[in-house]
Amino acid sequence: MSILIKNVILTDDHGFGNRSVNVLVENKIIKKITEECITADEIIDGRGDLLIPGFYNTHCHAAMTALRGYADDLPLDRWLFEKIFPAEDKLTERIVACASELAVAEMIRGGVVSFSDMYFFMDETARAAINSGIKLNLSRGYTSDANTTPENDFRFNETLDLLSKFNGAEDGRIIVDMCIHGEYTNAEAPMRRIGEYAKEHGLGIQIHVSETQNEHEQCIARHGMTPIAYFESLGVLDASVCAAHCVKVTDGDIAIMAKHGVSASHNPVSNLKLGSGIMPVRKLIDGGVNVALGTDGASSNNRLDLLREMQLAALLHKGAQEDPTVTNAREMLKIATENGAMAQGRSDCGRLEVGYRADLVLISVDELNNIPLYDKYSMLAYSARSSDVRMNMVDGRVLYLDGEFKTLDVEKIKYESKRTLKDFFI
Amino acid sequence: MSILIKNVILTDDHGFGNRSVNVLVENKIIKKITEECITADEIIDGRGDLLIPGFYNTHCHAAMTALRGYADDLPLDRWLFEKIFPAEDKLTERIVACASELAVAEMIRGGVVSFSDMYFFMDETARAAINSGIKLNLSRGYTSDANTTPENDFRFNETLDLLSKFNGAEDGRIIVDMCIHGEYTNAEAPMRRIGEYAKEHGLGIQIHVSETQNEHEQCIARHGMTPIAYFESLGVLDASVCAAHCVKVTDGDIAIMAKHGVSASHNPVSNLKLGSGIMPVRKLIDGGVNVALGTDGASSNNRLDLLREMQLAALLHKGAQEDPTVTNAREMLKIATENGAMAQGRSDCGRLEVGYRADLVLISVDELNNIPLYDKYSMLAYSARSSDVRMNMVDGRVLYLDGEFKTLDVEKIKYESKRTLKDFFI
Repeated sequence: MSILIKNVILTDDHGFGNRSVNVLVENKIIKKITEECITADEIIDGRGDLLIPGFYNTHCHAAMTALRGYADDLPLDRWLFEKIFPAEDKLTERIVACASELAVAEMIRGGVVSFSDMYFFMDETARAAINSGIKLNLSRGYTSDANTTPENDFRFNETLDLLSKFNGAEDGRIIVDMCIHGEYTNAEAPMRRIGEYAKEHGLGIQIHVSETQNEHEQCIARHGMTPIAYFESLGVLDASVCAAHCVKVTDGDIAIMAKHGVSASHNPVSNLKLGSGIMPVRKLIDGGVNVALGTDGASSNNRLDLLREMQLAALLHKGAQEDPTVTNAREMLKIATENGAMAQGRSDCGRLEVGYRADLVLISVDELNNIPLYDKYSMLAYSARSSDVRMNMVDGRVLYLDGEFKTLDVEKIKYESKRTLKDFFI
Repeated sequence: MSILIKNVILTDDHGFGNRSVNVLVENKIIKKITEECITADEIIDGRGDLLIPGFYNTHCHAAMTALRGYADDLPLDRWLFEKIFPAEDKLTERIVACASELAVAEMIRGGVVSFSDMYFFMDETARAAINSGIKLNLSRGYTSDANTTPENDFRFNETLDLLSKFNGAEDGRIIVDMCIHGEYTNAEAPMRRIGEYAKEHGLGIQIHVSETQNEHEQCIARHGMTPIAYFESLGVLDASVCAAHCVKVTDGDIAIMAKHGVSASHNPVSNLKLGSGIMPVRKLIDGGVNVALGTDGASSNNRLDLLREMQLAALLHKGAQEDPTVTNAREMLKIATENGAMAQGRSDCGRLEVGYRADLVLISVDELNNIPLYDKYSMLAYSARSSDVRMNMVDGRVLYLDGEFKTLDVEKIKYESKRTLKDFFI
């Protein structure tokens, strides 16, 4: 089965300028990018719009969509202890299933082709991803104390169960990662064991790292080291790690991250909304760290909109450092796409190149906010809206096109979400 | 002619909770807000969506939409002197007309009911506003040097001409303000004269104030005073002033602004994108200053999307001050609506209350990103998208409803903009 996405424009690194090109997709893969007239089994008319690699959301808790808008504008400790933790205690498989479906639909609508998720009842989130066609790196949220022995711990065993059921499923679309929720929610021995297990089995690890000043300082008080240095000392960074937030990382941390190939998931909306601060993104990039983007959960965002995340990243560091050259639009697109795929261990994804997986997004240039079009990178980083996404394709399969979800019954998802989620926690 | 907007929900300050209400509009005015069944000449079905006051954009250069994406990621001086000023030298009435129409259409689509504008060829921007139905506070950008005598200066005379033609036009929908572009682009005597003239005739003044550290410090070096203190010393603040940016204002400036009733137009996207910095918004509000929101021009934004501006303001200060309680969602809605109307001198606008002008916006709650709906203020400040705007009504006239522009031929505007604006400056 072949699909031709005809009459599109590409970003300038492709060398076509604003000339119309045709992109042929076959068996999940980008087969040809050409100005020639070719044909295929199915044809999608690009109508002169901009085709780019899809967005990779490298840090999310999809099920927390159930708590969107439930507890905003509170101090972090009241938010967590009075609202979020008590609500999470009431979560059921049914709520997680429903909220995951809602989250996946929102992400597909906004051009997200793949997301990393850390939570519980992860079978439900896996099913939502499998049914929808989106890519997923799932991890069972892992916390422990000094008495925990991983092999006898239900959280660890759930991870083993998820690995056997889902890792590599759907021709690699679903990947199972290990998880260390954070340094402050785990004991030393279990973290060492998870690092070893991940390294032995070639698995990734999702971790929250240095999200807040408190977390960062308490780790130093406990261990005489920053969280990154502590994780290095435990051997955890010998596995393939994606570290979410990294707001408070030091220059020394950045050197350690680069040395071990740790990816940093930048979550600017969540970090602002919770009052955590601003990641030193320029230092991380210049230090050789693979920086990607994430939305975090909808309770601290409140959208799952990676384009918005990219646009905030494009603006924020210029303003915070009072220097408009700190970041640039082209670099931001790379962070949102190629670097995200790399953070998820998907080396054949994230680029619009022959031989790569066809994870593609079509953005309408015919919107009031995108006219005139001088610079396609600027359009993406500063003016496009997630509602300008016309098409979302994952592994060569169209998930969304011109208002229509191809794999999901979105009216049913909205109806079920309204009926099931609202007022559940109150 | 009466219009009933039936079956809507309102924000919680109205006391209806989530119950369905009907809003009756007659002769431009909100006549009745009731749970009772009533009827009218025309009925708009709210379908349970959220009706709010429209957004007031208190700082814009609409014609700079022509330069959207034309010069991004550059240092401020190169941006201005190599790109923006040379391009502006080539601007024609036709370009300003076309770019203003494009800007107005984008603003209407995003729920902006009124905008303040500072530029030149302002007849064209006035016409775009008059034809579209949006409200406008226009001002002719005013710069001067030591040799300028306002009464013999074409810029001043253009302002007098605009006053006679447009001030109070369309039953008050169009207001003409005076302008002082900035302290750094004007000489003392003309600024004094503009202050006097505005005061004598009860006119507002639009000014750029303390946008950058350079501007702020150079004023101190020149006059031994901050820009705000200097404007006070010239008598300028005795008129009704809307000061754009105020990024670098001091505690002393804030006290002066509060004393004189100066409004501050917060432009967070532009201030970040140009590397200007972050306005001390909490200090301004706590100091008694009327803080409103603005987009600035599309060349430093690159959208004219006040909801995005409100959402960035809602997030930014929490993160910059590392305190999630610095601002709250409800306060942000007031800044985007009521405070904006006040900054424009429109005391009968900006609130959804009986007797106020019917400047109303309907936001769809049935979007993936707005489900579940726990808190309507949170929805507006954190999760809604400008594409969720279903209706934009100004002075009781529907300008946009469910995909249809009622006063503009948007396909023609897009076609003309693409033909006229692109490549003009290169």
